[in-house]
Amino acid sequence: MRSLSVDLGDRSYPIHIGPGLLGRPELITARLPAPRVAVVSNEVVAPLYLERLRRGLAAAGVAVTEIVLPNGEATKSWETLNHIYDTLLAARCERSTTLVALGGGVVGDLTGFAAATYQRGVPFIQVPTTLLAQVDSSVGGKTGINHPRGKNMIGAFHQPLAVVADTNTLDTLPDRELSAGLAEVIKYGLIRDLPFLEWLETNLERLLARDGEALAHAIERSCADKAGIVAADEREGGIRALLNLGHTFGHAIEAGMGYGAWLHGEAVAAGTVMAAELSRRLGWLAPGDVERVRALLARARLPVAGPDMAPEQYLDLMGHDKKVSGGKLRLVLLERLGHACIAAAPPRDDILAAIAAIAACSGHG
Amino acid sequence: MRSLSVDLGDRSYPIHIGPGLLGRPELITARLPAPRVAVVSNEVVAPLYLERLRRGLAAAGVAVTEIVLPNGEATKSWETLNHIYDTLLAARCERSTTLVALGGGVVGDLTGFAAATYQRGVPFIQVPTTLLAQVDSSVGGKTGINHPRGKNMIGAFHQPLAVVADTNTLDTLPDRELSAGLAEVIKYGLIRDLPFLEWLETNLERLLARDGEALAHAIERSCADKAGIVAADEREGGIRALLNLGHTFGHAIEAGMGYGAWLHGEAVAAGTVMAAELSRRLGWLAPGDVERVRALLARARLPVAGPDMAPEQYLDLMGHDKKVSGGKLRLVLLERLGHACIAAAPPRDDILAAIAAIAACSGHG
Repeated sequence: MRSLSVDLGDRSYPIHIGPGLLGRPELITARLPAPRVAVVSNEVVAPLYLERLRRGLAAAGVAVTEIVLPNGEATKSWETLNHIYDTLLAARCERSTTLVALGGGVVGDLTGFAAATYQRGVPFIQVPTTLLAQVDSSVGGKTGINHPRGKNMIGAFHQPLAVVADTNTLDTLPDRELSAGLAEVIKYGLIRDLPFLEWLETNLERLLARDGEALAHAIERSCADKAGIVAADEREGGIRALLNLGHTFGHAIEAGMGYGAWLHGEAVAAGTVMAAELSRRLGWLAPGDVERVRALLARARLPVAGPDMAPEQYLDLMGHDKKVSGGKLRLVLLERLGHACIAAAPPRDDILAAIAAIAACSGHG
Repeated sequence: MRSLSVDLGDRSYPIHIGPGLLGRPELITARLPAPRVAVVSNEVVAPLYLERLRRGLAAAGVAVTEIVLPNGEATKSWETLNHIYDTLLAARCERSTTLVALGGGVVGDLTGFAAATYQRGVPFIQVPTTLLAQVDSSVGGKTGINHPRGKNMIGAFHQPLAVVADTNTLDTLPDRELSAGLAEVIKYGLIRDLPFLEWLETNLERLLARDGEALAHAIERSCADKAGIVAADEREGGIRALLNLGHTFGHAIEAGMGYGAWLHGEAVAAGTVMAAELSRRLGWLAPGDVERVRALLARARLPVAGPDMAPEQYLDLMGHDKKVSGGKLRLVLLERLGHACIAAAPPRDDILAAIAAIAACSGHG
């Protein structure tokens, strides 16, 4: 098992990564304020892993309420959130009940937001079962639900008590979701970790082949990069925004296509190519750099072109993203490979041209 | 103008109390991170005061979006919250937009929760226009909405940037709501401020007659009592719970009768008599003390008896209150007048008997 810490003063918490951690309930029970949890999962993950988790907790004397949700991005809605509230209230769960998120990013974001708002806040623990959740969404305390006008528009910062990432759960992950997780892994290399980017260029096929050692290394390195950023800027006043490389373009793709049509990581991948292309137009990246970004994402079996929407529609949907300040679009771009920056107001024409260049190619599907 | 501070480190904020403060926009603009606000009010308060507030802010160069909600406790719902989100998104309000709550407790709780959750948190300012909001709900950062299974079950702790209480707004407050506010004022005397309780016994008729000086004193003293408690225990891990004297019984009344049938302060008044009666049964208060509590609340034109529900139904509804720990009901009771305490698990029979004694009398309406 590899362990690291997210340093946030009295809200610091551990991240544990390794095979078989679902069979180690003490990683969870050691953090509980009371021996009562509600495990939230979905209809895909629950049949695979919920019983193993429940059994371990029950054997340790923990009362377990189970909440199984439908699968998919459409689940990240007020209706599902309300279903969680209803179940918690019907089971008379109290302020000392800890919510446990067993699943991917959707389950984690929803469960975290339920924990942030149930009775004005209860503790929660992340047990991520997808690569994307293990390397990104389970760490850092961003929680929320979608709104018809924008993804994650409603939410809260609410840090978990612990993150327990059992790498064995990746054995059952569909290939498409493994690739979606790799988009975020590659992101860490691009924004602040050139040696990791180079490691990924050397080892990508090991990750696609689900080599346990390679996956554990990539997850640990990703979590360490994220933990460092979150510790420095918990509420995204500054450098945390760098984690959104490709995300503003990506949100436009997800919103434009309807939530769930593209996986988040797929939209981020295409958005990252757009960000790289825009960085090139601003004179920061060389054409070869953009090609290097595109090639690595393509090797990870990710889309490297956006869907065929009008560039103006992209821009309109990007304006609803949270990365807007004073009416100006702020975009995370690349000053060079391994070093991201925030561009306060890139020229509109350059943004449209970068979108057009990348949306025109065929790359998804 | 009287000013005091809620001391919460880097989240400390001022409370300003006095006549005509709606005409002093600098009390608001000095706290804004950006010259953009969304003022949330309701259809009763908005026609009276929104234009005055808007004009002052606009003259100071602040862009103002207006959101006017229906009146009443039923407004504290997900549907209304979603209407706020919709309006903010349609107006492209950003993370630096400050929400301003202009109204009573319902508007303040809703707006505060919208601020806590819109784009994972934006700033907000309380401009309370009812006595209850000025002495209680606008101070301390409790925000939330109701759930069919319980009041304030969904919410967050989110401190305002400032509280601006214009005492002139009380001129238009219906008598019934003035009385409801007095229930919370009397509470501060009962739980921790015997000299204030005695002042209230001497000056209650001045408050009912809306004597400006008396009201300003009562509001300042109430806010000082509350600020002291909140600074010591922001998230209700300990002594903050004392502020809930009468509230657990009161929640049962509000839930049992349907939200809005009883005003919150009315339910708290009857609940406070129940808490006093239970304290007497436990040997803490003398019969004369209970009578003193009842007499003061009655002079404030508040109900001093609960509705005619079965005591077991009260108890069942009280079990859904947030003041439950380890399945045990925790109640705020009075060790003596001016000194509240938390009773971890009072005998069930005594609770039922206290409810029966107070619910049996006729006292409401």
